[in-house]
Amino acid sequence: MDFRFIDGTITTPQGFTGAAICGGIKEGNTTKKDIMMVKCDTLCNAAAVYTKNLVKSDAILVTQEHLKNGKAQAIVANSGNANTCNADGYKKASDVCKLCASTLNIAEDDVIVASTGVIGVPLPLEPFEQKLYLMKKMMSSENGSDCAEAIMTTDTVKKEMAMEMTIDGKTVTVGGIAKGSGMIHINMGTMLSFVTTDCAISSKMLEEALKEAVEDSYNMVSVDGDTSTNDTLAIMASGKAGNKEITTKNEDYKTFVAGLTEAFKSLAKQLAKDGEGATKLLICDVSGAKTKKDAVGVAKTVIGSSLVKTAMFGADANWGRVLCAIGYSGMDVDISKVKVTFKSEGGEVLVCENGAGVGFDEDEAKKVLVCDTVTIDIELNDGEGFAEAYGCDLTYDYVKINGDYRT
Amino acid sequence: MDFRFIDGTITTPQGFTGAAICGGIKEGNTTKKDIMMVKCDTLCNAAAVYTKNLVKSDAILVTQEHLKNGKAQAIVANSGNANTCNADGYKKASDVCKLCASTLNIAEDDVIVASTGVIGVPLPLEPFEQKLYLMKKMMSSENGSDCAEAIMTTDTVKKEMAMEMTIDGKTVTVGGIAKGSGMIHINMGTMLSFVTTDCAISSKMLEEALKEAVEDSYNMVSVDGDTSTNDTLAIMASGKAGNKEITTKNEDYKTFVAGLTEAFKSLAKQLAKDGEGATKLLICDVSGAKTKKDAVGVAKTVIGSSLVKTAMFGADANWGRVLCAIGYSGMDVDISKVKVTFKSEGGEVLVCENGAGVGFDEDEAKKVLVCDTVTIDIELNDGEGFAEAYGCDLTYDYVKINGDYRT
Repeated sequence: MDFRFIDGTITTPQGFTGAAICGGIKEGNTTKKDIMMVKCDTLCNAAAVYTKNLVKSDAILVTQEHLKNGKAQAIVANSGNANTCNADGYKKASDVCKLCASTLNIAEDDVIVASTGVIGVPLPLEPFEQKLYLMKKMMSSENGSDCAEAIMTTDTVKKEMAMEMTIDGKTVTVGGIAKGSGMIHINMGTMLSFVTTDCAISSKMLEEALKEAVEDSYNMVSVDGDTSTNDTLAIMASGKAGNKEITTKNEDYKTFVAGLTEAFKSLAKQLAKDGEGATKLLICDVSGAKTKKDAVGVAKTVIGSSLVKTAMFGADANWGRVLCAIGYSGMDVDISKVKVTFKSEGGEVLVCENGAGVGFDEDEAKKVLVCDTVTIDIELNDGEGFAEAYGCDLTYDYVKINGDYRT
Repeated sequence: MDFRFIDGTITTPQGFTGAAICGGIKEGNTTKKDIMMVKCDTLCNAAAVYTKNLVKSDAILVTQEHLKNGKAQAIVANSGNANTCNADGYKKASDVCKLCASTLNIAEDDVIVASTGVIGVPLPLEPFEQKLYLMKKMMSSENGSDCAEAIMTTDTVKKEMAMEMTIDGKTVTVGGIAKGSGMIHINMGTMLSFVTTDCAISSKMLEEALKEAVEDSYNMVSVDGDTSTNDTLAIMASGKAGNKEITTKNEDYKTFVAGLTEAFKSLAKQLAKDGEGATKLLICDVSGAKTKKDAVGVAKTVIGSSLVKTAMFGADANWGRVLCAIGYSGMDVDISKVKVTFKSEGGEVLVCENGAGVGFDEDEAKKVLVCDTVTIDIELNDGEGFAEAYGCDLTYDYVKINGDYRT
């Protein structure tokens, strides 16, 4: 596939600039950047997908309204407050868009808004009133990383990526940022991801591409099984790459979807690896399933098992737990054909074949499992379906972060 | 309802005796009781339910075979080895039944067998060959508690109960033991529960009663979401209480089911409270759901949320996480009607009404949440459906037990 990762971030694709600042959204915050704006110098085609939780941030309700026409020109987002479960939430989210629009001199309904942080606390508008104008002066294509920083909550590292691919003979660039390491921060947290591209693609095809690419990437991440109320993944396409606009599911579309999938996977893995309290990235590769659906079900169940996650934390080659999770996944699996191998930079060790344990060297297994990325490879030997899921280990720090953080 | 809990255990109902011993099933064990036998002096009607995991212990396969005729006279069970995923597992489980049968002078297919412990390690037969005969001499109605001890693995306390109810003017007694505190021990653990009664009830009605009673009790327990390979709940009815045999779903049947449900709930709560690493029992009471199914779905999702569980460990009145879990339960809920109250011996505190937070005193909330049994009361205000689920908090010790135990 014709794509390559490059140094870069959300402001790398042509047409995009950004800025981030400390607005003091959360009482007492005087240093951490917590407001970001990204703008395109032209109106973009845009699309987004959201949490399936019945409880939704008002920011999502406003963004859904604004993206009905498939167009957007700017993103404004904050950390420190989720603007969820507040009586005045919808009005506040609208007001933030109004402020952003008047500052950047664009239409209010071309603004994408997102929030992450504590729920049930009214969102203060003053930081936006006081800082957006300042941010407008700072807008630059150099500030993408600052934007990644501004949406962090309990994240320990920034998540960002950029990629180039060739479409219609032109270089198309994709850049993105993400945050979220479990359901995080006071009350509940959020997976936010904003992606930009200069690809020329219609609103409808962009939405289709987004939905396809998310299936094998973000939808295959599990940190703790909890689904947040604010999850938002939005994409804007400026069309500045100069390729012939993609308006049907042609070869160019397929190339774009393939590249976008890899871009999302990169961000998804960064999220999983920085899961709350995590010490390692877990990848579960399932092949040989009767169907794709069976492969997805097995991969997600194994990566989500608390017992598998704690075993991986302890670098314990506990294949019985993997087999057990396969067994309760509810998928159509012939256990007597299952083969399990643990893989990493430290080597690989076969632990289970034909559904039963095989002798292995515990020391060799330890060498494989102490690495910071471990793949649980599951061969079901029963068909052609395959899937890959991303997760992390379950550690003392997960309990610490989530049991103690309000005190 | 006409039942009362009494001091007692699995050998309290008329006709039952038991014995337990240290057989050294697991290498190096020279002190802990790890084999138990329970026998009835007459052939009983019997029934069982098992794990839904595709991976099943061979002990289950043998027991299923033996219970096809709805009859049993003895139970033999061991801890220290799950007899699962072994090439010779089925033969070994059959051999254990043979040994038990010849020792007790009963038919081989009237023996219920169960195992719990490490998987993938061949079950040693010597302990059974050497000890069952000795145990036969020890059989007594005083040894039920020893039997409860013999099936413990990482359990920190024995689980047992006894209850009397009046059926057809006669006193009917139910007694039972259980083990399992999550998916436990090397590789994976097990929920085992054996229940006896002297009620006169046909095999068919006993099986029906078992299935009904398990719905609101054992099936509402979640410790860590993992479903073991060895879970078995078996019941034997001696008929010695002298009531008219229950052969249809009459009033006596209803009384028996109601009592049995409470008996199972007692054991289920003991299991949840002793969940791996748990410091407290969590009860989630859901009422006002559109349907029973919605109530069950909400209760199970909330009690299974890692974020709710860690918040409860931290005595943190984090109602947002409860609301969030309701939101992703997939059930038919109107979030804007939801009311959440935390209750315990320490008092009660309303934290959420009409789907939004209400002001509450954090110190008062702390007083409620530090108690060792906490009820999360959820009123959905949308119908008549209700359900109660049982779980525990998620703690450092859960991670410790499951991350470290093989080293």
